Amino acid sequence: MRNGDFAVNNRFLRACRREPADRVPVWFMRQAGRYDPEYRQIRETYTLLDICREPELCARVTRMPVDKLGVDAAILFSDIMVPVGAMGMSFSLQENVGPVMEHPLRAEEDVASLRVFEPEEALPYVLATIRHLAKALPVPLIGFAGGPFTLASYMIEGGPSRDYVHTKTLMLARPDLWDRLMSKLSQAMARYLRAQIQAGASAVQIFDSWVGSLSVHAFRVRVKPHVQRMMADLADLRVPVIYFGVHTGELLADFADTGATVVGVDWRTPLDRARQRVGTSVALQGNLDPVSLFAPPEVLRREVETVLELGTQSPGYIFNLGHGVKPSTDLAQLQRVVEWVHAFDPANSPYPPSKEERA
Amino acid sequence: MRNGDFAVNNRFLRACRREPADRVPVWFMRQAGRYDPEYRQIRETYTLLDICREPELCARVTRMPVDKLGVDAAILFSDIMVPVGAMGMSFSLQENVGPVMEHPLRAEEDVASLRVFEPEEALPYVLATIRHLAKALPVPLIGFAGGPFTLASYMIEGGPSRDYVHTKTLMLARPDLWDRLMSKLSQAMARYLRAQIQAGASAVQIFDSWVGSLSVHAFRVRVKPHVQRMMADLADLRVPVIYFGVHTGELLADFADTGATVVGVDWRTPLDRARQRVGTSVALQGNLDPVSLFAPPEVLRREVETVLELGTQSPGYIFNLGHGVKPSTDLAQLQRVVEWVHAFDPANSPYPPSKEERA
Repeated sequence: MRNGDFAVNNRFLRACRREPADRVPVWFMRQAGRYDPEYRQIRETYTLLDICREPELCARVTRMPVDKLGVDAAILFSDIMVPVGAMGMSFSLQENVGPVMEHPLRAEEDVASLRVFEPEEALPYVLATIRHLAKALPVPLIGFAGGPFTLASYMIEGGPSRDYVHTKTLMLARPDLWDRLMSKLSQAMARYLRAQIQAGASAVQIFDSWVGSLSVHAFRVRVKPHVQRMMADLADLRVPVIYFGVHTGELLADFADTGATVVGVDWRTPLDRARQRVGTSVALQGNLDPVSLFAPPEVLRREVETVLELGTQSPGYIFNLGHGVKPSTDLAQLQRVVEWVHAFDPANSPYPPSKEERA
Repeated sequence: MRNGDFAVNNRFLRACRREPADRVPVWFMRQAGRYDPEYRQIRETYTLLDICREPELCARVTRMPVDKLGVDAAILFSDIMVPVGAMGMSFSLQENVGPVMEHPLRAEEDVASLRVFEPEEALPYVLATIRHLAKALPVPLIGFAGGPFTLASYMIEGGPSRDYVHTKTLMLARPDLWDRLMSKLSQAMARYLRAQIQAGASAVQIFDSWVGSLSVHAFRVRVKPHVQRMMADLADLRVPVIYFGVHTGELLADFADTGATVVGVDWRTPLDRARQRVGTSVALQGNLDPVSLFAPPEVLRREVETVLELGTQSPGYIFNLGHGVKPSTDLAQLQRVVEWVHAFDPANSPYPPSKEERA
């Protein structure tokens, strides 16, 4: 049994399972990050990867937003590139740029030499951080990994990209090689997520942030089967799995069909439309535009309430942003959002929780 | 009467009006550009803005893809920033970056000092180019302008942006100032497009490329009314107006509701879905992923045919990419696409042209 099931605050896990909860749960993608002065101070001494490698410090950073913002879930502080290193590809994380690979993956041999690593051997510090947190946190802990398309895009392009020319060209010109790469990535990430869950994560999120650059057809044929296999690989653990990317409005029905428990939605798709596309067998997570946090509080409040009203029209809803918190965000604005989400009365939504649940 | 109506090749204009045509018409966004060695050679001597300011050279560049690719429409060679200069804001076009403003627009006075210019006075060379082309081209000429959100985003951010923080913050925090800015931009661009049409453009496209960064609600309240006013301002001229942006899947129904004649679609939204959203009162244009042009010809052909099959399921369809041609594209691939589009038999689609039309 892991922490989340016994936690005082289990509304996040209840919402993932589309069960009624006392309040709408809320957490933020990148809720531990540069917007927080304490985090910025830590980063004066430690790089992001330094923090990931020091379980006590990493646990402290992971917990900071739980204490400061009052969010209903913690997410492991890490980076989707951490396991890419464990697969045998060197990279650096460059400030204001992102991951930059030492040698981009382009050839047959590059795929062949990727290691489907043993998490306990290759990334013991990640699992140590999770064990530490699972005992101490007052809320469930979310583990995570990058999605196969998104990881492949960094590996192949050599860094962030606007158009994914090399990635899509490999996919179109060498579908056999592409499938081998996707298989290795999805197998490695499923194994990594399994280890995180076994160490104490109560849920996991797959960040396939850039998969929305694909057409529906390309996603269905070249990515979805691999995501489905990841979901199937994790199914026996019976913890919620969230699948998320930006620009994915057209992919939402297929996202729901991967076996995901929760589908993350960016701010472009209103949540009532997202619900029509995903059906009623998954929960939804999202989708305030992160830039709304720069608006005056009274304007921000209206934006938050609009999202809440659309999100709570059907059971299974977790408030979040439509993408990560921006570094220049004011911490006080995030605090306000949590307050407003928790003050929102789901009883006024068409699907109120039962009386017992609210007592 | 303008050229396009008498042109030998009028299938582009017929498709805009949802009338049957002998073949599916095709043109490409950025069809005059760096993929063409002759263009690259011209750019060794002239900057992009130099070309725009020299009517004969500009007409030659505009015509190049018509002769080389066999496309069914020409689009004026220019840049959406050209009229921004005429409004009184200085900028430069930086290679591999895009437009960079000398002073970003941020304050009340900056909006107040923008000029709604007289096109014949401020940009005579653009209109001279169009007059020159309208007499000589064997296909209709498409004029264009930037959409109000996209122009505002360059003005406010000071250049290209990933997240439009300053633009959206101004919109949320100062809706009054935002509306004044939108009014000036849409008025100036409507006047500019009117002048282009009067000089001989047979159709115009409004490139609101980045408007898909907005939520549906923000688009409806803060941008759509201004686009509607632009469309209304141009309605008496009775030429097709195309409205286009990327990441706009969620906005397509609203796009159709602006009064546009044709709605441009990026590659993320399958054209049959796009049709469901826009209804039957507009034509559709798009939507091959520009990166597909890097695939081997036999793979590219399948991609082209998939787009054609979805696009021709209802009347009023123009083949195009989902965004501009990338500079590293092979010219021969574009030639192949035009050939395949023209070889496609719309008679096999559920809405074949009438016999008379095909004779």
